[in-house]
Amino acid sequence: MPPVVSLVGKPDCGKTTLLEKLIPELNRRGFRVGTIKHHVHEFEMDTPGKDTWRHKRAGAHTVALSSPGGIGVIKDVDHDATIEELVGRFFDDVDLVITEGYKGASAPKIEVFRSSAHPDPLENRDETWLALVTDVPLKSNLPEFSADDAPGIAAFLIDRLLAETPSHTLLQVNGSAIPLTTFIAELFRKTITGMVTTLKGCKDPKSITITIRND
Amino acid sequence: MPPVVSLVGKPDCGKTTLLEKLIPELNRRGFRVGTIKHHVHEFEMDTPGKDTWRHKRAGAHTVALSSPGGIGVIKDVDHDATIEELVGRFFDDVDLVITEGYKGASAPKIEVFRSSAHPDPLENRDETWLALVTDVPLKSNLPEFSADDAPGIAAFLIDRLLAETPSHTLLQVNGSAIPLTTFIAELFRKTITGMVTTLKGCKDPKSITITIRND
Repeated sequence: MPPVVSLVGKPDCGKTTLLEKLIPELNRRGFRVGTIKHHVHEFEMDTPGKDTWRHKRAGAHTVALSSPGGIGVIKDVDHDATIEELVGRFFDDVDLVITEGYKGASAPKIEVFRSSAHPDPLENRDETWLALVTDVPLKSNLPEFSADDAPGIAAFLIDRLLAETPSHTLLQVNGSAIPLTTFIAELFRKTITGMVTTLKGCKDPKSITITIRND
Repeated sequence: MPPVVSLVGKPDCGKTTLLEKLIPELNRRGFRVGTIKHHVHEFEMDTPGKDTWRHKRAGAHTVALSSPGGIGVIKDVDHDATIEELVGRFFDDVDLVITEGYKGASAPKIEVFRSSAHPDPLENRDETWLALVTDVPLKSNLPEFSADDAPGIAAFLIDRLLAETPSHTLLQVNGSAIPLTTFIAELFRKTITGMVTTLKGCKDPKSITITIRND
């Protein structure tokens, strides 16, 4: 599972604008970036009138539009997905996931602050805060970057989050993530990796996904 | 993995319109429906100006919009995904997948024919054809339905495809589906199901998804 970092900050502080500058910097350095945006209100991603939009409106639970260069999927869910669920399910082929928001989650965070939009940064900074992106110096013990310094922020993220990608095992049962101890995670990872390597064409399984349905 | 049926037919024969009538009929009978639309040209699903659209345009490989009721995901791919890849990856939580098109794939097919749009139905009908939906009688050995008879078509699909959902194992390694013999598929399914049932809260694992990343 790729590492995750969350851009947090008050509304209109420049999270999306920073992300637009950060993504190309990370791409240039050879990293594939995924992004997650949280949305609390009614959900609309497709374009009215398109066939996929018509499918969804007719009551399809999941619709996919597939082309040689890209895939789009829109699906119903019965709960607000956690970052872990989203990353485990949709982001296995990226190197880093950056979320907008998710202030209350446990992922490492970079706070964006713009003094012309708000008098103060967020309160209740905790140990998940990695750095601040601010237009004025803040009295903090954290690294502080200017929003113009996308190259510096990208280099910082690579150093802190991408220096090594550890082995990982994610288990979902009946649609929910099951927490695993390190022992159990390694038991699953090594057992299944061992089974897979006995198959033709699977000598070097960097990533493995198995989906099982039982009667 | 849910069963798949493909609606095929010449352009403008009424595939999307039929799908719009079929989905509510299947929903009413308690089945969750997923749909797949194939698109050969440039890909656009999001709405220009939205944050997720800005992330993608900046170079994100995968973007997700997550809300309590729905998830939207748009991602780059390096090849035209097969139905099996799409279903294995995105449709594990639906009961039936209906595709528009995919005439050349191996899924069972329902051909839609509208005599006012085309003089003849498709040629090269093969053993994957299940039924015809047509506005005039065709000389075929297949069941023929009127496009107005969505309840009859839904009942036919349920009888032919949803009477029983078999156990299933899908394995993807380094992003590609690996074909499994029945013996190996059952070995994986029973071994992993057995391991999972030893975990707390996993006594009845109807569906299991495991994602592994190795260094």
